[in-house]
Amino acid sequence: MKKNVGIRPAAKADAGKILYFIRQLAAYEKMQDEVVATEESLREWIFEKGKAEVLFAVVDGKEVGFALFFHNFSTFLGRAGIYLEDLFVLPEYRGMGCGKKLITALAAAAVERGCGRLEWSCLDWNRPSIDFYLSLGASPLEDWTVYRVTGERLQKLADSAGV
Amino acid sequence: MKKNVGIRPAAKADAGKILYFIRQLAAYEKMQDEVVATEESLREWIFEKGKAEVLFAVVDGKEVGFALFFHNFSTFLGRAGIYLEDLFVLPEYRGMGCGKKLITALAAAAVERGCGRLEWSCLDWNRPSIDFYLSLGASPLEDWTVYRVTGERLQKLADSAGV
Repeated sequence: MKKNVGIRPAAKADAGKILYFIRQLAAYEKMQDEVVATEESLREWIFEKGKAEVLFAVVDGKEVGFALFFHNFSTFLGRAGIYLEDLFVLPEYRGMGCGKKLITALAAAAVERGCGRLEWSCLDWNRPSIDFYLSLGASPLEDWTVYRVTGERLQKLADSAGV
Repeated sequence: MKKNVGIRPAAKADAGKILYFIRQLAAYEKMQDEVVATEESLREWIFEKGKAEVLFAVVDGKEVGFALFFHNFSTFLGRAGIYLEDLFVLPEYRGMGCGKKLITALAAAAVERGCGRLEWSCLDWNRPSIDFYLSLGASPLEDWTVYRVTGERLQKLADSAGV
């Protein structure tokens, strides 16, 4: 059945809904044990400190998917870009264009804000998503790998500063 | 010769120095043709819009390296992280610990700000950098690839929003 998909920005009162979608996405990625986010931390870091923004896809008045994003920065372009950290649509609402509507809304925001790029990461085994992204005109950055320091190792590295 | 390496944050008047380092790094990565950043765009996006921050490594009163970074966001941790976009030290000042001093300063900033992670990307052929990063306690995220939409494709995707 053809449904109308709306997009709306999330507000502070939506922290619980955002956490719900984060947990759903983590379960899909088989990483649900890694979610330590709480409603409180999301309220603080997204809405009080302004470190990310969220759009919801809405069908029949219900939030059925979300996109969480922030501004990254390209030194080559000398300006910010938009980085899509999480995109998720509830399984029973897939195939209705919710994901595409969320991504195109971000592309429009990027152009409107004068940003040079829209970027995101995808797990290499997630073939359905990769095909979808390629169909949107995205190119994979094959030659790059992300490195991460976290937890005790981050503390240890911080402790060595100024030594 | 043992030199003392200092760290200082860049200010708006440093846009020219930042651009110089960006161009040096691009040349090292064999991508100098891709740099379209200008002093003006760096002043606007880094210092007026606040979309990135820069630290300089200083030896004998001279800026000899830089780290450009911004806040990213981990939905699993429910808080921001620090993402190091560019790190560069002038060839004649390598081996003095400038790179390590810049990275540990970022690790300290991450801990001080309550961030959960410090991350960056590295070209897969850059073995000296990879070995250095592993020595700092960083782990590669092997299963992920970044996808990018830019230029005319970004405009086209934006134009399809709301359709």
